[in-house]
Parts: sequence; structure tokens; C-alpha cells
Amino acid sequence: MRLPLRSFCVFRSFLHPRRTAAAHRQGLSGAAMRLVQFRRLDKEDGVRVGVERGEGLGVVDLKAFDPSMPSTVRELLELGDKGLECAQRASVSGQCVVDRSSIQLLPPVLAPEKVVCVGMNYRDHCLEQNAPIPEEPIIFSKFPSAITGPYDDIIVPPESQEVDWEVELAFVIGRRGKHIKEEDALSYVAGFTVANDVSARDWQMRRNGKQWLLSKTFDSFCPLGPALVTADAVKDPHNLGIRCLVNGDPVQSSNTDQMIFKTATLIAWVSKFVTLTPGDVFLTGTPPGVGVFRNPPVFLKKGDVVECQIDQLGSIINRVV
Amino acid sequence: MRLPLRSFCVFRSFLHPRRTAAAHRQGLSGAAMRLVQFRRLDKEDGVRVGVERGEGLGVVDLKAFDPSMPSTVRELLELGDKGLECAQRASVSGQCVVDRSSIQLLPPVLAPEKVVCVGMNYRDHCLEQNAPIPEEPIIFSKFPSAITGPYDDIIVPPESQEVDWEVELAFVIGRRGKHIKEEDALSYVAGFTVANDVSARDWQMRRNGKQWLLSKTFDSFCPLGPALVTADAVKDPHNLGIRCLVNGDPVQSSNTDQMIFKTATLIAWVSKFVTLTPGDVFLTGTPPGVGVFRNPPVFLKKGDVVECQIDQLGSIINRVV
Repeated sequence: MRLPLRSFCVFRSFLHPRRTAAAHRQGLSGAAMRLVQFRRLDKEDGVRVGVERGEGLGVVDLKAFDPSMPSTVRELLELGDKGLECAQRASVSGQCVVDRSSIQLLPPVLAPEKVVCVGMNYRDHCLEQNAPIPEEPIIFSKFPSAITGPYDDIIVPPESQEVDWEVELAFVIGRRGKHIKEEDALSYVAGFTVANDVSARDWQMRRNGKQWLLSKTFDSFCPLGPALVTADAVKDPHNLGIRCLVNGDPVQSSNTDQMIFKTATLIAWVSKFVTLTPGDVFLTGTPPGVGVFRNPPVFLKKGDVVECQIDQLGSIINRVV
Repeated sequence: MRLPLRSFCVFRSFLHPRRTAAAHRQGLSGAAMRLVQFRRLDKEDGVRVGVERGEGLGVVDLKAFDPSMPSTVRELLELGDKGLECAQRASVSGQCVVDRSSIQLLPPVLAPEKVVCVGMNYRDHCLEQNAPIPEEPIIFSKFPSAITGPYDDIIVPPESQEVDWEVELAFVIGRRGKHIKEEDALSYVAGFTVANDVSARDWQMRRNGKQWLLSKTFDSFCPLGPALVTADAVKDPHNLGIRCLVNGDPVQSSNTDQMIFKTATLIAWVSKFVTLTPGDVFLTGTPPGVGVFRNPPVFLKKGDVVECQIDQLGSIINRVV
């Protein structure tokens, strides 16, 4: 059920009818951007949407550019092509750029309706644990409350002694759909980002009737970011180097070409069950090198620093506390 | 992360400082009400919050009473005691009552952050399947997109041939909390309602790597309602008759006193993992009599009508299509 949204940026769109129509033909493309959410350290007004001028560079503050702009990326996506158009207009203006030192970067999506996760989705990760290649995707979830920022802390809870890392390619849904055909599925992707599917192996493997939810959904167990890189800005999301470093040591290093079920297949599959909605986040599975399958197993401890990197998307760096 | 909320109903609250203070001392109590969400058939303006004057009776339209009132129960709960105070003031006014024939009743909560479900939580349901009584709660989830109204259709998807019923007592969280002590837990409950934890047994028992999520989260697999009955209006939520009827035939009939892990225990348990937030819905497990454990098994088919009843809370009636 959708609540009606205010119509943003109407006047400005009216000035560019041709560009809007072109963007529509291309689905959600035509606006290569790095969308971020941030908080201004000099203001007390909560979440804002921005466009990064490049990884780690200044951020165009959409609300400063046009006060009618939405306050969250989810709201921006709910506006469809028009929302991305507005963001792009702000981005190319070169105005209203805030310095990185004056903002706190938040996860690029907050409060999605769904965080959809995929298990056992890298060939090399299946080989690592002598598990068969799944014949269909294995879908589980985290609660949205697990999402935390790209540089926020991962909190090791007293309930787990086996907290592990999992670098993952994440994508975010840009428009509403059900029973989406695989050949149409990529037009439902707003963009890609980096996730760490932090996992409490004791709870995943031996507790909660082997339902994975609790092991995956402790608060802070879903660092996300640094930016939502729009789909048209990523040449081939299934040919990206993907790495995890713990205290600077590489522990996972693979390529997204090892994914068994790729973006379009996952969207078609999950949308057979549920209606997808703008802002829904998919975590697409992890490559080999997780701590639990090492000999002896290695788990995260307080003071560790975990960095998850994906080519073209960037890095998220989270301290374990 | 919470977005700032507008302050509603400020002037009216100011008129009753004593009642506000009293309500605060009692936590979320002091306002026995049947909160509903509805759509007016004569208007195109979306979700509204109302207070039922009794099960099946007219509904006080909060927004008609005071345009500053929130549009959803979740927003109302986010206002804390003040929100419930406002609703009660509207309720006792006897004004702005809309007739049942002019509204469509919606689920009493829409778009919660979490739908937390509990498996194997009735002693008699464990005995039915010769399963041991769990030593700790088994927690899984549905996506919020599964929620549907108290009289809406349950859609049997082409992907499942084994769709089953599960009447369940549901409760809704009224205030934010983490690491909630069991002795404090009931003060976090806004109220109780009736749920049907519709389940695709083929997907639950034989597919998706035995992760239950997909089997439980098809669109329409969480009928909810008819009202959120505030906690103080329910004398003892763990001594309520609970029944399911299919085409008028009783298939489940038990009492919530059979629950293994009760409301307070479940809140304390789940809040060890995640921060609970107003609007979060808990489904607390089902008694015996589900279709899959019958001999031979019985599943829902198009045209069936499923009614789930709980004493004091009411009935939800959903046609299978």
C-alpha cells in the first residue's frame, strides 16, 4: 500500500521535457551518479540526500539546491525518473557542495521495506565448504534495523562469540514490481553498493532451529555504502573485483563473475514471491575467505577493523567494538 | 535512526496535563481502545486512523476530529502516550463517527519495520507433530509486504500447491527499546490483534535451503486485524480462546495459555538481538490443527474462506483466491 507522495521539483522538470522522456525510455538510467545520505555536522536537521562528486570528494546537498527535494534516497527513488533527474540537475550545477569534513556519511539507504539476502551464491564459496552449487537461490533476510553506515562501528554482542565478515555486492530496487521477467529485471535496479553481511556463526549454525535470521540481524550487522552508484555508472556489475581486509590483511578476494545467480535472476526469482518496492536492498552473497571456514576458524574481536571493497563502488571501513 | 516527527495535538494535550502524567506512569496504558486503520470510500485520501466503538461498530475518524492527528497507527504509536491520549480524547468525544458501510478496514499496522514470527510456540502444536518443546524461541520473519487487511483475499500463488492456515495471537510494539528486561517488557506492548501466518508448506519444508522466509512471505500471507486492541483492554492475553475455521468448520481450537514463550519473554529475547521500534509486529505461533499435519494433509484452495478468531480481539475473515 503506497501513501501519496508530494510532487517535487515540478517546475524544473518542466524545463526539460525532452530529457525526462529520454530518461524514461532508458528505465532508470541516464544519470550516472553516486547517491549518498548524510547528516550535516553544523545542523540538527537529520538525514539529507547528496550526490558525491567522486569517491571521497565533496557532496552536493540536494536540499540546499532545492528545498523541495526529498530527504531520503528511498523517497528520491519513489519519485522515479523525475527524482533522479532532479538529483542530476543538482549534481551538474556544481552548486551547494559541502565538504566531507562537515558531514557524517550515513548508509545510502535507510529503512527499506526489505533487506533480501542470498546464501551460497559464489561458486568459489561453495567449493570452500564442499557444498553443492545450489540449483535455486537461497533467500533469507535481515531486519532493516541492522543497517549501519559505511564508517560506523560493528557491535559484537555479548550473545555471540563467533562474529564473522562477508563482503557482498548489494543492489537497490528503483521501482515497484511483481513477477518481473528476467529480461526486464535490470531496469528495476537503481544502483549498486558495498555491504558487509556480518554473521554470528554460532547462531547461524547451531541455534534458532537453524533459521538464519537472528544470526544475521543483530543491530549493526549490515554496514552499507559508501554510495549508491547508479546502475548506468557501473559498466558490468558481474565483473568487479571484490575484497575484504581485516586489519589490513586480505581475507576475501574474488570477482563478482563468480556469482551463481546474478542480479536479473535474483530480481525475477524474489519478485515471484513478493512485490519489490523502491529502496529494497539485496545482498547477493559472499565469496570465499570467511573466518568460520578457516583452519582454525577466525572471528572478529573488539578493535579489529574490517574493510570491504568493490571495484568502481568503493570501500566501507568499520571498526569492531 | 529516527526522523524527527511533527508534534501533534499539542494544544489539546495542554488542556489535560494531569491525564497525560497519569498515562505516563502506567506506561502505554490508560486508554482501552480498538485502534483501526481504514480508507473512506467517499474520499481518495488514503490511510486514516480510527477508534472502533466496539467490534464491528462505527469508527471515530481521528483526522476528522483533529486534522493534526497522524495518518497511520505506526505514527500514532511513535508519539508515545501523547498519541494514545489524543486518540482517546477523540474516542470519548463521540464525534466524527463514520459508519462501517462507508469505510474499508485496512490492517491495523502497515509498513512496520519488522514482522517477527515465532515457530513451534504452542505445547499442543509440538505434541501434534511429535516435536520436542523448544528450549529457546525459534524466530523467523515475514516481509512487511505480506501484510493484508482483515477481510482481504489470501492469494494462492502458482508457485505453491500447499498453502496452509495458522491462526496466531499478534502483538504490536509501542515504544523503542533494546535489551528490554522481561519484567519491563509488557510496558512495550501497544496492543494485541489477530493474525493468520499463512504458510506454503512445500517451500517451508522442502525448498529454499529450509530457510522459512519465502514460504511465509508471499504477498497476502499475513492477514492482520480487525483492530489493534490496546494492552489495557485485554485482561489476560495468555488466557484467550483461539480458533481457526475453514469454510465454517473448526480446524484449530486452543487457548493462548498453551504458548511456551509468552509476550514478555519474546520481547526480552528478540530485543537482545535488535532494537524494537513502534509498530513492530510479533506473531506468536500457532496451536495444533494446521492442514499439513492432518492425515491426509489438507491445503487451502481457491474459494475457501478462512476465519481466525481470538476472544476479546475479534475475527479476521479472508477468502482464498
